[in-house]
Amino acid sequence: MQVAGKHYRSIWLEEATGELRIIDQTLLPHRFEIRTIATVAEAAEAIRSMRVRGAPLIGAMAAHGLALALERDSSDESLARAARELLATRPTAINLRWAVDRVVAVVEAMTDPSSGERAECAREEARAICDEDVASCSAIGDYGLAILEELAASKRGAPLQILTHCNAGWLATVDWGTALAPIYKAHQAGLPIHVWVDETRPRNQGASLTAFELREQGVPHTVIVDNAGGHLMQSGRVDAVIVGSDRTTARGDVCNKIGTYLKALAAEANDVPFYVALPVSSIDWSIEDGMAEIPIEERDAREVREWVGLDDSGEMRRVSLFSESSPVANPAFDITPARYVTALLTEFGLCKADRSDLADLRRRIEKI
Amino acid sequence: MQVAGKHYRSIWLEEATGELRIIDQTLLPHRFEIRTIATVAEAAEAIRSMRVRGAPLIGAMAAHGLALALERDSSDESLARAARELLATRPTAINLRWAVDRVVAVVEAMTDPSSGERAECAREEARAICDEDVASCSAIGDYGLAILEELAASKRGAPLQILTHCNAGWLATVDWGTALAPIYKAHQAGLPIHVWVDETRPRNQGASLTAFELREQGVPHTVIVDNAGGHLMQSGRVDAVIVGSDRTTARGDVCNKIGTYLKALAAEANDVPFYVALPVSSIDWSIEDGMAEIPIEERDAREVREWVGLDDSGEMRRVSLFSESSPVANPAFDITPARYVTALLTEFGLCKADRSDLADLRRRIEKI
Repeated sequence: MQVAGKHYRSIWLEEATGELRIIDQTLLPHRFEIRTIATVAEAAEAIRSMRVRGAPLIGAMAAHGLALALERDSSDESLARAARELLATRPTAINLRWAVDRVVAVVEAMTDPSSGERAECAREEARAICDEDVASCSAIGDYGLAILEELAASKRGAPLQILTHCNAGWLATVDWGTALAPIYKAHQAGLPIHVWVDETRPRNQGASLTAFELREQGVPHTVIVDNAGGHLMQSGRVDAVIVGSDRTTARGDVCNKIGTYLKALAAEANDVPFYVALPVSSIDWSIEDGMAEIPIEERDAREVREWVGLDDSGEMRRVSLFSESSPVANPAFDITPARYVTALLTEFGLCKADRSDLADLRRRIEKI
Repeated sequence: MQVAGKHYRSIWLEEATGELRIIDQTLLPHRFEIRTIATVAEAAEAIRSMRVRGAPLIGAMAAHGLALALERDSSDESLARAARELLATRPTAINLRWAVDRVVAVVEAMTDPSSGERAECAREEARAICDEDVASCSAIGDYGLAILEELAASKRGAPLQILTHCNAGWLATVDWGTALAPIYKAHQAGLPIHVWVDETRPRNQGASLTAFELREQGVPHTVIVDNAGGHLMQSGRVDAVIVGSDRTTARGDVCNKIGTYLKALAAEANDVPFYVALPVSSIDWSIEDGMAEIPIEERDAREVREWVGLDDSGEMRRVSLFSESSPVANPAFDITPARYVTALLTEFGLCKADRSDLADLRRRIEKI
């Protein structure tokens, strides 16, 4: 999508040099800085410190990280060590494991390769993962657009009001985004649309990234604190909620950014449709019960206690909100049980969040 | 309650000088500063800028504000002007109007007073409002303690886990607090208790005030972002929610800090009892339907966009989180419909959040 009118992906290989580049998302919206990732250690650091984040983008980064590792040392040990290092960065999103497994499988399937070929093979697979992610997100956008057009029919030209939590936009994927893809498609199609952007504490991905994205594409939006969404739904000011997912189980439980569950409860209480947009790569077919089976990452207390923003002189500055003598808990994700999900929105179309429809979807995918 | 081991009320008349003093709550938890309020304009400013906040404390401040106005000019016009100025500060909490009406009524009932007597009469009424608030909150604490003791019975000595939103502690009242009073009573009675403190965006009264209060009384607590409460309830880590109320309707709808409604939905979905602690002065007997009849204050966008905290050198500093080109909506309160409220906890004991039980309560009060 666009930043200052120029098209970017969130991760790319520089054409001239072949270098791997990312946008450092920890500096947004204050500074737009491009960073080169040259080693698997840098790739792992970028995931851990959330310079790149969002389930699909983490997967893409990890795939490229394996290629970087093989460039230096193409041995089996190097591949295994790199895979371990990348998998240890963040426990919740499933795409990370999916992408690593996929690259490892193609590399291991090579017969008698030269060392350069192994790295090249991994790089090609990473590139394919990125391109497929773009295509998937675009398809999610197209299927989502159809839903939004339907919802808009009853609005008589008034803007469709969509609430989203966290950032499931192009910065969370390689391009287009998941939850935001339908919104971008609708905006491009001339459908009047307005987005309520949950700030998304503690890391403020809504205020920092989603608002930034929407602004750069010219989509009308309003930032709200996470506390406000229930009130807006209760007041009839939200037509639909669309969020992303870090992992979805085989029965349709959705693990997503902490606070998603509260919005799902409010949507249900107020008859607001609640859609979850995701590429099928973020479905974990091996588990059913999200509450019991998905590890919830507990992150650093500093994310809650401290804030980074611009001071009066335009410098980025960290401030501390409350005393270190008050302890902090900082779970990063929560589980929205399948019954609160109106539908899953995938690159293969809509799917009910239940075991049987998901099993059908899986059979369709396996035939492809 | 205690600050650094010394007892304070949140508002008081200095014994030696008769000056009206408050704690400037906009500076907490970073600085503990006492401020003198000398005029009705200063009283109104203190309410508007939230140097004092919390429905009961706003009422107490407004009552004293009228006394200050009458000290300067004891005419009817002065009284009416001061009442108007104070009532215009914040629209949602009902105690403000209740306290102003009460002081105006006693002053107007005086026959042929000298000017000094009018001010003295208002000051005595304000003092009575403060003392009654302390007694009410203490009674709320005692009734609440009985509930907590009952809940603790099934915990086999493990700490009782209470979640609270915003600050309904002693800083929101004159002393003791509403939602926190039962917690202080339980802690003093030796009941093991731990409090989950919702940060409470946008003004962070949880992280700034509730955590400060609990720390100063030595009550174990953990600060969480507002997004985390649903996950904690879903994981069985919350035994009860207790919040305050800015205004409660005659059928039991509860208007409280934005985000309260989301916690009520999560409590209901997870069978966690949801108590609302309030002095009966915050019941608005004139209305039924909270959604339709309570004005929701919309506050400044800067509260969402900007943060004040301590920088590395210990200076208080304001930082801006996102661009001014992204608009903000900042509703300060929401409505929790009566059906989500397990019980109202008042200075007259427990009361169901329904029309008939509330009408009984009202009859009991009117007999007193």
